[in-house]
Amino acid sequence: MTSIDTELLTVPSYVQEAWWTPQNTPAGAPIVRDANTGEPLAKVSSEGLDLAAVVRYGRETGQRNLADFTFHQRALKLKELAQFLNGRREELYEISAKTGATKIDNLVDIDGGIGVLFTFGSKGRRELPNSNVIIDGPLEVLSRDGSFAGEHIYTRIPGVAVQINAFNFPVWGMLEKFAPAFLAGVPSIVKPATPTGYLAEAMVRLMIESGILPKGSIQLISGSARTLLDELDYRDLVAFTGSASTAKALKSHPQVVFGGVRFTSETDSLNAAILGPDAAAGTPEFEAFVRSVVTEMTVKAGQKCTSIRRTIVPVALKDDVVAAISARLTEKVVLGDPRAEGVTMGALASLEQLADVRAAVQTMLNAGGELAYGSLDAPMVTRRDGSVGSAEDGAFMSPVLLSWSDPAAPEVHNLEAFGPVTSVIGYDSLDQAIQLAAMGAGSLVASVCSNDPLVVQQLVTGIAAHHGRVLVLNREDARSSTGHGAPVPHLVHGGPGRAGGGEELGGIRSVHHHMQRTALQGSPNMLTAVTGVWHPGADRHFDGTHPFRKSLAELRIGDAFGSELREVSLQDVTDFANSTGDTFYAHTNEEAAAANPFFPGIVAHGYLLLSWAAGLFVEPAPGPVLANYGLENLRFITPLAAGDSFRVTLTAKQITPREDQDYGEVCWDAILHNQHDEIVATYDVLTLVAKTQEPVDGGAGTSSMLS
Amino acid sequence: MTSIDTELLTVPSYVQEAWWTPQNTPAGAPIVRDANTGEPLAKVSSEGLDLAAVVRYGRETGQRNLADFTFHQRALKLKELAQFLNGRREELYEISAKTGATKIDNLVDIDGGIGVLFTFGSKGRRELPNSNVIIDGPLEVLSRDGSFAGEHIYTRIPGVAVQINAFNFPVWGMLEKFAPAFLAGVPSIVKPATPTGYLAEAMVRLMIESGILPKGSIQLISGSARTLLDELDYRDLVAFTGSASTAKALKSHPQVVFGGVRFTSETDSLNAAILGPDAAAGTPEFEAFVRSVVTEMTVKAGQKCTSIRRTIVPVALKDDVVAAISARLTEKVVLGDPRAEGVTMGALASLEQLADVRAAVQTMLNAGGELAYGSLDAPMVTRRDGSVGSAEDGAFMSPVLLSWSDPAAPEVHNLEAFGPVTSVIGYDSLDQAIQLAAMGAGSLVASVCSNDPLVVQQLVTGIAAHHGRVLVLNREDARSSTGHGAPVPHLVHGGPGRAGGGEELGGIRSVHHHMQRTALQGSPNMLTAVTGVWHPGADRHFDGTHPFRKSLAELRIGDAFGSELREVSLQDVTDFANSTGDTFYAHTNEEAAAANPFFPGIVAHGYLLLSWAAGLFVEPAPGPVLANYGLENLRFITPLAAGDSFRVTLTAKQITPREDQDYGEVCWDAILHNQHDEIVATYDVLTLVAKTQEPVDGGAGTSSMLS
Repeated sequence: MTSIDTELLTVPSYVQEAWWTPQNTPAGAPIVRDANTGEPLAKVSSEGLDLAAVVRYGRETGQRNLADFTFHQRALKLKELAQFLNGRREELYEISAKTGATKIDNLVDIDGGIGVLFTFGSKGRRELPNSNVIIDGPLEVLSRDGSFAGEHIYTRIPGVAVQINAFNFPVWGMLEKFAPAFLAGVPSIVKPATPTGYLAEAMVRLMIESGILPKGSIQLISGSARTLLDELDYRDLVAFTGSASTAKALKSHPQVVFGGVRFTSETDSLNAAILGPDAAAGTPEFEAFVRSVVTEMTVKAGQKCTSIRRTIVPVALKDDVVAAISARLTEKVVLGDPRAEGVTMGALASLEQLADVRAAVQTMLNAGGELAYGSLDAPMVTRRDGSVGSAEDGAFMSPVLLSWSDPAAPEVHNLEAFGPVTSVIGYDSLDQAIQLAAMGAGSLVASVCSNDPLVVQQLVTGIAAHHGRVLVLNREDARSSTGHGAPVPHLVHGGPGRAGGGEELGGIRSVHHHMQRTALQGSPNMLTAVTGVWHPGADRHFDGTHPFRKSLAELRIGDAFGSELREVSLQDVTDFANSTGDTFYAHTNEEAAAANPFFPGIVAHGYLLLSWAAGLFVEPAPGPVLANYGLENLRFITPLAAGDSFRVTLTAKQITPREDQDYGEVCWDAILHNQHDEIVATYDVLTLVAKTQEPVDGGAGTSSMLS
Repeated sequence: MTSIDTELLTVPSYVQEAWWTPQNTPAGAPIVRDANTGEPLAKVSSEGLDLAAVVRYGRETGQRNLADFTFHQRALKLKELAQFLNGRREELYEISAKTGATKIDNLVDIDGGIGVLFTFGSKGRRELPNSNVIIDGPLEVLSRDGSFAGEHIYTRIPGVAVQINAFNFPVWGMLEKFAPAFLAGVPSIVKPATPTGYLAEAMVRLMIESGILPKGSIQLISGSARTLLDELDYRDLVAFTGSASTAKALKSHPQVVFGGVRFTSETDSLNAAILGPDAAAGTPEFEAFVRSVVTEMTVKAGQKCTSIRRTIVPVALKDDVVAAISARLTEKVVLGDPRAEGVTMGALASLEQLADVRAAVQTMLNAGGELAYGSLDAPMVTRRDGSVGSAEDGAFMSPVLLSWSDPAAPEVHNLEAFGPVTSVIGYDSLDQAIQLAAMGAGSLVASVCSNDPLVVQQLVTGIAAHHGRVLVLNREDARSSTGHGAPVPHLVHGGPGRAGGGEELGGIRSVHHHMQRTALQGSPNMLTAVTGVWHPGADRHFDGTHPFRKSLAELRIGDAFGSELREVSLQDVTDFANSTGDTFYAHTNEEAAAANPFFPGIVAHGYLLLSWAAGLFVEPAPGPVLANYGLENLRFITPLAAGDSFRVTLTAKQITPREDQDYGEVCWDAILHNQHDEIVATYDVLTLVAKTQEPVDGGAGTSSMLS
């Protein structure tokens, strides 16, 4: 044991609401180092940690405490957490620099991670009910009399979400998994990658310090969690990001194969960027393509699972592409310690990483790749003090561009150099470009760079099933695009085959992945009881008080209003046609209307029925109902001829109080019947309703209903 | 080799558009027998079949031919196929009787299987676009200027769907997997279970005879497909139904763990039925519960993966339940050859099955289960000729009801007797009932039988995450319910944990499982190019012809109409309030309106805007637009005060010609702007439009728009 070992602290874990380090960190425990200087930073060990207790704590305490909150309440906590962390970014940047991350890299990892919390904080309140049960898809009526129906619900899985992260994005990688788990109500157990786990630990420390998260929401294992999967079963979920080899080891774990553990993985892939035949040098698409390839080579020193590894271009444009990428690399890349001024590309995460990448490039050179830019020699770098010299103990590497004469060389499509390295290959036809892209055998993302809609249509539909994400770059979005390499929380991240076969993010889709979808069958009353949403056919309550006079505090699901019949005369239809200008022949010309296959003759305007229905159900005086902000699912079923009558029945269907306002949304089921009790129209009316009978203050000026 | 062996035919496979049997069926090939009599029927062998060629044929020829059709066209083929098969059921019933299936069993397996084809034939045309790309979820605008956006698309997986089925539902089990694969455009390779594969073969023979399916849509492997998974990769899917042990062998196959093969399984589980504390003897719920348990014990002789294995009842009601089930079994069950009159329960599928079930029951008796009904002795049965006697070579077994004093006995919750067997256990509290249900460690389905909404809410939300389906039975749906054991094609079938962790059916959800979800990013024009659906921000075409004057043959996505501005006066608002009766204060009382946080003062009715907008865009004279049948996604964004003006822009967003009508649906993007070019409202207008300029004949009388 060297003296360094004994002085170094061990990165702590956070379990069962306490910080934990081994009583005696083993002599052989890994030492993590500053990527730029090689300076030792800490030891990493979880030796002696009771992993079964960690899982039990999550399943019991975590599940119980998270159940105290609704989706909206948890979403609001994510927003508050994001605001808290936003104020503490500088502390994280400082630690992050040690991993080799530049300022731009920090924007991706740290700001990007906090951004995920903001997005889920917002989406959770806009797109989920303020409850704990999500309805998925429409009702399926399963009996003729409507007494038996089915639908799907999501309820959270009854276990823990184990999140195993990669070394390249210690913050973003953790938060993009944590946010949807937390929103779903599932406790997280975070296992960062060893080389950069000290940054994840710093982030978890801030999250705990915030005091915002219920106990058991998050636990952190710094160090090996080799036997953690032994403790899991079908109630739990493992979300893995990292190497394909580790993914395979986890995926073949007995508790995954035999125990029903839900497993999803996101592994590195050989992502492609395809240049369209129209995108010759000088076009905006060519320029965008070159910029994108250089960005993907250099951000995080190319250590991104989404980086462009395969640059697939028309044969005729290959030389132009190689020249343009090389020129831009020369112009833009300043290699060095991220803490020095002007540096645009940092070190790889470790010397081990550096050795792996160099070895991969050497294999590709041996297999026919030509070195079009860069070198495998130790590069000159800008040191922390601003001086320029050799890299010494830092894990620095020059960007490397390889050009291949054989576009189908296997090493192009299956050997990944996880650093600032890309290969350029040529294609003769769009079909060949599609085949080459597919040779990656499943990738996270591909770019298609073209301004020809037919080219884009053919390439994208040809490659989509092999990819988790496809970015189309053209002159219209070249400046506004979030870029090839950047997953956004709104869209899914993951891909088939080599990319791991998993799916993360994608907004509420990732919340669903933390829940079980269950088909629910029963009578409308029982579906209403389980979901808290009124279902057609369930009991309605007519208690003498118009439901529009009830505040959210008073209103109950099923509270209803039924109008009297109102007759529609031919004159009414004519008047409506004249005042609105809607003189469609079905409302004005008896003979033409009768010739239409859907109308018996002149019929009332659908919009007349809607307008009159509002007249039948509205309460004129000020009250808790503040506004009708929209309408959904309108279907006109039976047309109404002159002389027919109709009535409207309005029923409180779903009530969604806003956590941070003194009002909320109420969705009303509206149904129109004619004098024969046939259904004329059905729709949902969307309103804003005050929480109490007190007047609502919208602040200065006029509020937007949809904010 | 006996003389029987040499006389027996071998069940053929169907591969590459030809029927195939081994040149020499091996001497040791399995012999399948009539379940009722033991009579040998056929040998089963796929010895020498080139499985790699089968997969290649599906991937190449099958994929290519299925690509010639849209979702709607494939859906129509499923409907035609269902109609064809419906006329040939008698042939199948006759063969099915040999498997031990009664008339009721045939309704489930054969009619039920054809019903799945009908459902997907209908859903495919109602719920999918008439194209080959599905958009999933809303657009996500990703840049401030709207030039960059993202959304999700589904495209079919580029391989084959291998469908490995169980012996108990040779027809339904095959068709419920085939229908969604076919609708998605993915070729099927069907591998039936050996004991009843001859019935699946008869069904495939009819499907081929129909001439409806494109070449390569379906191939059949009769016999072992042991090495089939070796041929698959990330482009392919395996859907398995059967025993947990086989599922595990498949799930741990290297091509699943390392090769990215998509794998889903549905395995038997220990499904529960829970009786609520309110459902005492004499209540309709008690009666429904007893009927359901007996049905699940006897249909298919209890050989259903959805059968009730655990009957969980209030301790106080346990004796009543045991007595009532026993009485009903005595009354209803007539055991025998399904071809004899009056028989209500047939044989198990084979003597091997019978031995397994008896052994499991014996283990349960040894573990503390008390035999409350039935016996393990060979029962008396009605023979094919109507005589009653011992079962001889038939695989017959008496229903068995076990009563347990220890509700947590492991054998209740983890030992499955795959036959007419159920256990009755008692609970003291709802929490305990939930815990007992969860001890199944993941099940396909549970019933909850109660008429108390609070009991139902607590039980269902407590057990949902452990189940793929939950049925609530009460007096309202006891008669109309499709039953505990019957998956319906509209709802998902599958469950977590022991149930296999898979998901099938669920309407279009199962089509999605045969597709890759891909995040698509680009400019609105490029999203439009890929999806064939117009996106806000994409180019509009104003070519001088009002798009309402264009038939489907002429109309193109993006064809648009823009109106002039129309001013709204206070008098207009007042008149509208008076004629419609909608005198809400926001339209009639300046002071009250101004006090509302969302309005500047009196504003125009939202329905006035809709009605006037129609007046602005409508074409009065008869033409290809037949009707406005509905409206979606209406949001009022900026209120319009007296004196403000607005205009409407209408753009053809999605065009869906109907395959079997001379018209189709057109969805129009509608957007209202005020005189300051602020957005006033957005919505989608749903219309029916003729395919040509010829008049549309709706047949006699008035057609329904929504048929």
